[in-house]
Amino acid sequence: MKVLVLGGDGFCGWPTSLHLSQLAHDVVIVDNLSRRAIDLELEVESLTPIRPLGERLRVWRELTGHEIGFVHLDLAVEYDRLESLLREERPDAIVHFGEQRAAPYSMRNNAAKRYTVDNNVRATHNVLVAVVASGLDAAIVHLGTMGVYGYGWSGSAPIPEGYLTVKVPTPDGDLEREILHPANPGSVYHMTKTLDQLLFAFYAANDQLRITDLHQGIVWGTQTAQTALDERLINRFDYDGDYGTVLNRFLMQAAIGHPLTVHGTGGQTRAFIHIRDTVRCVQIALENPPSRGDKVKVFNQVTETHRVRELAELISRLTGVEVALLPNPRREAVENELNVSRDQFTALGLNPTRLSEGLLEEARDIAARYKDRADTTKIIARSVWRSGMETSPDLVKG
Amino acid sequence: MKVLVLGGDGFCGWPTSLHLSQLAHDVVIVDNLSRRAIDLELEVESLTPIRPLGERLRVWRELTGHEIGFVHLDLAVEYDRLESLLREERPDAIVHFGEQRAAPYSMRNNAAKRYTVDNNVRATHNVLVAVVASGLDAAIVHLGTMGVYGYGWSGSAPIPEGYLTVKVPTPDGDLEREILHPANPGSVYHMTKTLDQLLFAFYAANDQLRITDLHQGIVWGTQTAQTALDERLINRFDYDGDYGTVLNRFLMQAAIGHPLTVHGTGGQTRAFIHIRDTVRCVQIALENPPSRGDKVKVFNQVTETHRVRELAELISRLTGVEVALLPNPRREAVENELNVSRDQFTALGLNPTRLSEGLLEEARDIAARYKDRADTTKIIARSVWRSGMETSPDLVKG
Repeated sequence: MKVLVLGGDGFCGWPTSLHLSQLAHDVVIVDNLSRRAIDLELEVESLTPIRPLGERLRVWRELTGHEIGFVHLDLAVEYDRLESLLREERPDAIVHFGEQRAAPYSMRNNAAKRYTVDNNVRATHNVLVAVVASGLDAAIVHLGTMGVYGYGWSGSAPIPEGYLTVKVPTPDGDLEREILHPANPGSVYHMTKTLDQLLFAFYAANDQLRITDLHQGIVWGTQTAQTALDERLINRFDYDGDYGTVLNRFLMQAAIGHPLTVHGTGGQTRAFIHIRDTVRCVQIALENPPSRGDKVKVFNQVTETHRVRELAELISRLTGVEVALLPNPRREAVENELNVSRDQFTALGLNPTRLSEGLLEEARDIAARYKDRADTTKIIARSVWRSGMETSPDLVKG
Repeated sequence: MKVLVLGGDGFCGWPTSLHLSQLAHDVVIVDNLSRRAIDLELEVESLTPIRPLGERLRVWRELTGHEIGFVHLDLAVEYDRLESLLREERPDAIVHFGEQRAAPYSMRNNAAKRYTVDNNVRATHNVLVAVVASGLDAAIVHLGTMGVYGYGWSGSAPIPEGYLTVKVPTPDGDLEREILHPANPGSVYHMTKTLDQLLFAFYAANDQLRITDLHQGIVWGTQTAQTALDERLINRFDYDGDYGTVLNRFLMQAAIGHPLTVHGTGGQTRAFIHIRDTVRCVQIALENPPSRGDKVKVFNQVTETHRVRELAELISRLTGVEVALLPNPRREAVENELNVSRDQFTALGLNPTRLSEGLLEEARDIAARYKDRADTTKIIARSVWRSGMETSPDLVKG
């Protein structure tokens, strides 16, 4: 089938594009290269030496014979071009990664808060309007986040996949109702994904769009079978305080002998998924879309949960690098439990990459191999959730 | 106190500005005159002869000695000017009417859908970011809508004011949780107010902003004590298919002998409030703000509920004008009940204008008096919720 991958040059978008292309789907990447532009703004670079998109696509074609298209387009701003693109390409499916995706960046300053809301809401809404306008019946698969749920509302019951059945007390007794799980976002970025949910619910109901929302945990790992084919296809690896995800940051820190930066007590429990499973989950979601008239289909795209402190201790034991407890720049619970329902992907055959298998490979093939590219002045997280909150000085000399 | 009224030139904003000025508050209107620009786009005019804002403000000053400031500013686009304005004026309170407010207009075409989302979300978010950035402790009062609730989730129990207490079944028994009432918006416009709710919840929690959200019913009536002081202060009266509110449309239709345009069966039950009560509710909300650290305070700003068909029949009996049942351009329940909790404003002393008192005055002083200004080609609602839905031809010659 023909698939547009919106944001197909990014950390999840690029390996997803290659995975779908490998499966012989006709893939067209739509991207404005905003992620690379933010690297310029932050004066950081991926630890891995990512190549320009044109080169990536040329190498992929040379190695595999598969052609991936590319349209340079800003989803949030260039609505007319987006609608024309849909009318011309008539995709069977649209995978939507085209949003600013870092919580710390979204709290960095006023401009970043505003950019995150303006970009993400407009990008998603423009896609929905353009699909309606072009009369397409394309399946839309969107990357959401576990962060829409906060810590969940269900006590010892796992966080359900999108919808929660509750009892509403009334004078005539309790009424059972299925509701969208209440939103409890922890950053402006996460908030935009809760806004997306309401946009999706409306367009699924009013226009019968077929939408799947993937509430993903924190991604770790770098390579998939496809990105590992050639160094020029390598995926990005962010280690900086704004874009680096926690486990990858620990691996990179261990590789250069930098203390492992745990915020607060490290008692935060988080949900994780390897990038190899991200691309498989997107494939599974594309193969199992909702029908016209269905409500939005929600998957929890998560394979395991861990306490941040325990991950740091694990990597410390493996590498001998110490753990540093730093002031937490986020407003969040000091400690939390997290129990996540993930029955749907399991039922659909996902066989996940476990932390215990992937960790050493990642440390050896990525973190250690490219450690000389690291800029140690970019490691400490400095975006704070509220003005005046404390952050750590650099722990090693730049 | 100093109050900024965002959208202070509009249907609710203008009488609110005068009401607060009359109470000796120091009022500054912030508006980009977008409502007047949309009149130009739709080629319609208020039935009442509204004057330019500069003239309105001059007349008000001459009659009462009260000075109202005016800043021409686009909240959605001119963030830097907004932040500077807050730093200079340092308002004690901000009343936020600065959003596109018509459901039919929001469904009119792709451009109007996108404008409604882009304008409303960015306006609200910019206000929140600017308040945080300027370090103000201003009370924020926002005009929401009853439409965030849909028809409610509580069966025979009234729709609560913003929050719903539910029981979440868990293996350890039911957990009682207070949640934001689930969103069920019926148009892109209403959806933007559900997005606003999530923005407010986040900024109240993260930045301790003090926010009140007024979920208003359908406004009827035109004049308040202040706008009636001089014809040059008159409030707007919209009768067209996009911006006219149902009861005012019926009154205008009756005045010119046009059949009363009921969509579908008219079995829709709606919540109503007179414009005189809108301005008093905003005053009460300003006098009873939440404290720092409180959750968003939500009022249902409603004084009575009626079935649309019954309103049409009432006006038909009073005037002899017939009722016309037209195809419904909206996707909505054919018939619905609506039972709304409105205890807070009652407890705070609101003594509402009842339909039974205000109706004849409105018909005589506004609809009949200005009926010669009507353009009968603008009466039929033509914005449809989904492409291909049927609308009525004009019922009278233009």
